[in-house]
Amino acid sequence: MTRTVIESKTKTVVIGFDEPFCVIGERINPTGRKKLAAELEAGDFTTVEKDALEQVACGAMVLDVNSGAVFTNKMAEDPRYADNNFVEPPLMRELITRIQALTDVPLCIDSSVPGALQNGLEVAEGRPLLNSVTGEEERLELVLPLVKKYNVPVVAISNDDTGISEDPDVRFAVAKKIVERAADFGIPAHDIVVDPLVMPIGAMASAGQQVWELVRRLRNELGVNTTCGASNISFGLPHRHGINGAFLPMAITAGMTSAIMNPMRPQEMEAIRAANFLMNHDPNGAQWIAFTRIMDAVNEGASFAEASKASSDSGAGRGGRRRRR
Amino acid sequence: MTRTVIESKTKTVVIGFDEPFCVIGERINPTGRKKLAAELEAGDFTTVEKDALEQVACGAMVLDVNSGAVFTNKMAEDPRYADNNFVEPPLMRELITRIQALTDVPLCIDSSVPGALQNGLEVAEGRPLLNSVTGEEERLELVLPLVKKYNVPVVAISNDDTGISEDPDVRFAVAKKIVERAADFGIPAHDIVVDPLVMPIGAMASAGQQVWELVRRLRNELGVNTTCGASNISFGLPHRHGINGAFLPMAITAGMTSAIMNPMRPQEMEAIRAANFLMNHDPNGAQWIAFTRIMDAVNEGASFAEASKASSDSGAGRGGRRRRR
Repeated sequence: MTRTVIESKTKTVVIGFDEPFCVIGERINPTGRKKLAAELEAGDFTTVEKDALEQVACGAMVLDVNSGAVFTNKMAEDPRYADNNFVEPPLMRELITRIQALTDVPLCIDSSVPGALQNGLEVAEGRPLLNSVTGEEERLELVLPLVKKYNVPVVAISNDDTGISEDPDVRFAVAKKIVERAADFGIPAHDIVVDPLVMPIGAMASAGQQVWELVRRLRNELGVNTTCGASNISFGLPHRHGINGAFLPMAITAGMTSAIMNPMRPQEMEAIRAANFLMNHDPNGAQWIAFTRIMDAVNEGASFAEASKASSDSGAGRGGRRRRR
Repeated sequence: MTRTVIESKTKTVVIGFDEPFCVIGERINPTGRKKLAAELEAGDFTTVEKDALEQVACGAMVLDVNSGAVFTNKMAEDPRYADNNFVEPPLMRELITRIQALTDVPLCIDSSVPGALQNGLEVAEGRPLLNSVTGEEERLELVLPLVKKYNVPVVAISNDDTGISEDPDVRFAVAKKIVERAADFGIPAHDIVVDPLVMPIGAMASAGQQVWELVRRLRNELGVNTTCGASNISFGLPHRHGINGAFLPMAITAGMTSAIMNPMRPQEMEAIRAANFLMNHDPNGAQWIAFTRIMDAVNEGASFAEASKASSDSGAGRGGRRRRR
């Protein structure tokens, strides 16, 4: 039975075939969030800290921390800031330190810069998830030694030096290669969480079926847990939360065990809470019942974040929190 | 490839592995609807006719017509009315005749009284779906000859003379027995739509997993289409439409091809529209786009039935209608 163990200083989360779906909060990511990037450039962590707390209240079990900021003002003054290898490592250190001082959920260290991954690993308490390695030769050689040295689980994205293939068989082969290369480093399959890459259904009509099929193969043939950037599926479509809200239960039925997603969206979280119950991963429906009270408060005018926070503060059904182990 | 063909006088609906999920509207059913039963007793078909039109506008592709009324006033005057074999046959004839004069979707003739099934078959145009046969010996002997004589498809419910088993293997065995007995009558498997029986998740924690597993086996081992009373899954639970809205996409991923359900519930219909798109059963997302316009109108204050009717009247994306074949 495949269990990927992620830990903070005090809390353990297990991604697994027999576990509730693992919601990894995606909000702490300056990519495409200009206001957040500008705040980080000014040394202001207000939004990061608010996002951390709100995501956890809404049900994030792990927080993704992405350091991919572009510091446009500093860049104009000092050309070293044009290089992410210069910007990200100290930023990642600062982000991880601040966030783990504020919340007790495990973290996911997310960067394309090896120095930022290294810095994150140095300061993260417990056993963080590393995000990510790909099938690209250079990434494999840089990231897998870090995974081995720090004994952490890693997200493996199924693209390689040829890019992202539209052929799911090729994406499976890339995932298989990563698992095999990791084994050469002594890293077990249960510490690899494969992202099979979700294509937009609006651009590729078979995108959903590709995911179900890939997740089944990754699980049955490689024995690995899986994750995805769930909202990619609905890119460019109207009422995309409706698409996401069906996609997540469908992916869960196919065997997907986690997603990097926005936990502050009630439609998606409702779908996941219901799917957990229907997969027999919510004993006595306690989490579902707690969630319906949040929805009642939302229907009475509260925001989802406020209602979730009130519920998690009251400890109702341990709403939005993982039980300790 | 399993295709169950259902027809009205002018319209064909196919239940199949490669078809959009078939929504069978459940509303025309006096069981548990006292007001409707009283209307029928008084010879008033206003609600039936309204329900027929609204369900079709909202996306029902087939209408279930259940004649299970209890005529309490007439019963007090004439003891023959205590017998459903007396009440249902003429009522079914009247219901079918009126509904097919009003709408062009195929019908599902639903009764536990063989005389009502017979009467429905006599007046229904095209190729209706018969609902239902069970594994009970008496039902098999009474209903299968009707199925053969009228060359219609039939819903097979997987309970037998011992009742409804909580063991999914027993329910599978009952379904297999029905398929085999039907074959003895010359009825092919593709004309049998098995209802594996959905238990409430609040009472049986494995109810969802039982459905996924049974649907896969029914499809792979018996080659049959499947249906269910979808809302049973959420019986007794708060915010049950949220449970239903996750259950339907999950059942569709497992291979379920139809459900007898309330098409006037926007949350469930949104889930099905999204699931059709994600299963690659909605070319170019045309049905999804049309549905989002209905949701926009609902968000602006229209009722789901009104907004659906306006969309289907305008022919937008053939919203809520099946294409002709």
